Amino acid sequence: MNVILLSGGSGKRLWPLSNEVRSKQFLKIFKGPGEEYISMVQRVYGQLLAVDPGCRVTVATSKQQVSALRSQLGDGVDICVEPCRRDTFAAVALAAAYLRDQKGLSLDETVVVCPVDPFVDGSFFQCLKRLERLAGEGEENLYLMGITPSYPSAKYGYIMPSGEGEVSGAAGFREKPDEETARRYIREGALWNGGVFAFRLGYMLEKARERIGFSDYEGLLAGYEGLESISIDYAVAEHERKIGVLKFGGHWKDLGTWNTLTEAMGENVVGRALLGGDCRNLHVINELNVPVLCMGLKDTVVAAGPDGILVSDKKQSSYIKPLVDKIDQQIMYAEKSWGSYQVMDVEPESMTIKVTLRPGHSMNYHSHEHRDEVWTVLEGSGYAVVDGACRRVGPGDVVRMPAGSRHTLVAGTQLKVMEVQLGREISVKDKVKYEEGRIYRDGKRCEDLCGRP
Amino acid sequence: MNVILLSGGSGKRLWPLSNEVRSKQFLKIFKGPGEEYISMVQRVYGQLLAVDPGCRVTVATSKQQVSALRSQLGDGVDICVEPCRRDTFAAVALAAAYLRDQKGLSLDETVVVCPVDPFVDGSFFQCLKRLERLAGEGEENLYLMGITPSYPSAKYGYIMPSGEGEVSGAAGFREKPDEETARRYIREGALWNGGVFAFRLGYMLEKARERIGFSDYEGLLAGYEGLESISIDYAVAEHERKIGVLKFGGHWKDLGTWNTLTEAMGENVVGRALLGGDCRNLHVINELNVPVLCMGLKDTVVAAGPDGILVSDKKQSSYIKPLVDKIDQQIMYAEKSWGSYQVMDVEPESMTIKVTLRPGHSMNYHSHEHRDEVWTVLEGSGYAVVDGACRRVGPGDVVRMPAGSRHTLVAGTQLKVMEVQLGREISVKDKVKYEEGRIYRDGKRCEDLCGRP
Repeated sequence: MNVILLSGGSGKRLWPLSNEVRSKQFLKIFKGPGEEYISMVQRVYGQLLAVDPGCRVTVATSKQQVSALRSQLGDGVDICVEPCRRDTFAAVALAAAYLRDQKGLSLDETVVVCPVDPFVDGSFFQCLKRLERLAGEGEENLYLMGITPSYPSAKYGYIMPSGEGEVSGAAGFREKPDEETARRYIREGALWNGGVFAFRLGYMLEKARERIGFSDYEGLLAGYEGLESISIDYAVAEHERKIGVLKFGGHWKDLGTWNTLTEAMGENVVGRALLGGDCRNLHVINELNVPVLCMGLKDTVVAAGPDGILVSDKKQSSYIKPLVDKIDQQIMYAEKSWGSYQVMDVEPESMTIKVTLRPGHSMNYHSHEHRDEVWTVLEGSGYAVVDGACRRVGPGDVVRMPAGSRHTLVAGTQLKVMEVQLGREISVKDKVKYEEGRIYRDGKRCEDLCGRP
Repeated sequence: MNVILLSGGSGKRLWPLSNEVRSKQFLKIFKGPGEEYISMVQRVYGQLLAVDPGCRVTVATSKQQVSALRSQLGDGVDICVEPCRRDTFAAVALAAAYLRDQKGLSLDETVVVCPVDPFVDGSFFQCLKRLERLAGEGEENLYLMGITPSYPSAKYGYIMPSGEGEVSGAAGFREKPDEETARRYIREGALWNGGVFAFRLGYMLEKARERIGFSDYEGLLAGYEGLESISIDYAVAEHERKIGVLKFGGHWKDLGTWNTLTEAMGENVVGRALLGGDCRNLHVINELNVPVLCMGLKDTVVAAGPDGILVSDKKQSSYIKPLVDKIDQQIMYAEKSWGSYQVMDVEPESMTIKVTLRPGHSMNYHSHEHRDEVWTVLEGSGYAVVDGACRRVGPGDVVRMPAGSRHTLVAGTQLKVMEVQLGREISVKDKVKYEEGRIYRDGKRCEDLCGRP
């Protein structure tokens, strides 16, 4: 099965544990097959592979998420990077072109598109396989999954099937209704549109050519910024007459708010927390290394992370977005392909950051114009390169990088350093990257110069 | 007026913003005469001086609080340090001996004893002056303040006055009753015992001699650990027949729990916080540098500090102590006479601490047996001394201190450094202090060696 997972959204509705570089799908709050916590994207990816071990997964996402995806899913998945956000039609068109032009899929192959974050069980993925078979063997151009609604939700679009069977045509689409209207839709047999559909690759590329004018990967990539922001429902599904709907009657949940997310959590507490004084329907997610003590709380979610602390009545938590928009807080923690960083301290003329490098990984070779930096190695071993000079480093070693000097750090084992940045204008934008850093990236060059760390 | 302020308690009931080195009385949550926030002890001290500018204040407290007191009240107050905690009788006896033997007060002088943390207005201090005059001019040995109860509290002891006048004798004392009994006491005219009383110095020293066997400062200090833990009520007041009670009918509050403390706060929010979604009777105290977002909370207190986060229903917050006892969390922030420190990061073999030195202050000259340390200067200027070698330091300078080396830091201006500690056994106990550090303490010696910073 070829699956395109759409990984979108900056996830402000799950503040403070999601931000521009860390969307909700990367939060590790579910108990995995072992006893470790896994994220939504890890959960879905694992479920896909369990149902279809040969499944070829391509994640369609933005540049910001590549590091987190690589870190959480490893190198086994393909990632199709959108140069900017242009809604689902452009994302699916680009991913389809990527599969043909970069991965060599033929136009006859079937592809299933699915959001990266449904909270579902194995039956959903069985249904996904059925959807793929329909796209390959059935007579329609496009097959959608229609989810049997469990309540009159105002958060989802609805599909009107044309018949009552498990597979039928589509009589029409409805935008997110109010609750009253949703109730009527459901009486009329409507299904939720969960954004899950399947098609032959050639079909989608033809649709791209029709609407955008071209359908090759390089062309789409180059012109991506100029594409219209339109959903695949509006651009394709609503105009397609040869369309099929496959009903899914199992458990399906979209975990977009703290309210729904906490319902899906296996345990009431993730992280250090102590509950007392008759707490009921309370969920705590604490990513900090200090304890959270909760007493006498009901229907409440507490989420604490490097970016801030949320304490909210669960129902109210759906309305978080406009409030988070008001918060002017720099990103304090980010996962990268090479590891992670956490802002520890901010002063007017200094900033202290803890950098963790994964074994064998390195930073870009880079310099800063307006700030000096000092590394103190906390843990692990590797190499520090400053202006081409390479040295082995381990715990307690100090590396000084005056403004202008080119530098990188190459991890042998996992490497943790405390980085102090000093200057009047400290900005993430003050960074120049250098190509010659490639020669240090895997440590081979360093190893030649000064031996194994 | 001579006032002994009793500054006790480790303040677990106001966790996470109080701990063993930072009691509730040091929390800066009240609006001061300017717009800055002040603590309970600063508030009471300022109120005392406003009513009696010549007031001589001695704070009776433990060693742990000396730094915070000096930092918050300056050098104008005397501090009588209890070697360990032995309840109020021993504390008052020691302070009385201190006033005679160390401060030269005569036995005829009157002294008023008062807790350091009543939440009161100026009328309370007027009453304090009246109590002092009674002790000086009246016929009784001991004068107590009896506070007119505002509700049948189960938290306070009660005094039964022998008459209905403003000044009367005491017919008896009652321990903390249940609410029902408290209601009866109040009907019978009982007053709250707020731990405020006045006497002539000679009287209290005589009581000390009677009960303890000696009454000189050095003797009390040396034998302090062996003294019994007994309150002054049990040891003295309940046996004294020549006792007077002065009624105080004004506003009086003991701010011992989050519930009562938040009632006394001028504003609902101290620190970075954003309230949304219809919050009512919510108080937030946030000492962290990231925001707290609260939505739809009622009758709740949120307190966030370096040691942890509390989210509690206000009524439930009275029952916090047994829960906090369960928390095994090292102290993450402490105020010292020379400034403050904050733990930024803890790893198995390293710890990172931000140290802030007040201008002109310095650390003890010290060494560690089992850890290396690295300072990176973030801000300010001063001197670093390592094994007797002195150097000027400023932003970006790095100082390395291998295990065993003697070191100190002397602040010229306010000086902030990031200190990385490295070793397998990092413990606050691993510290040897050296006397010769005195020669660096005010920077004069450093100035001679390398000039003004």
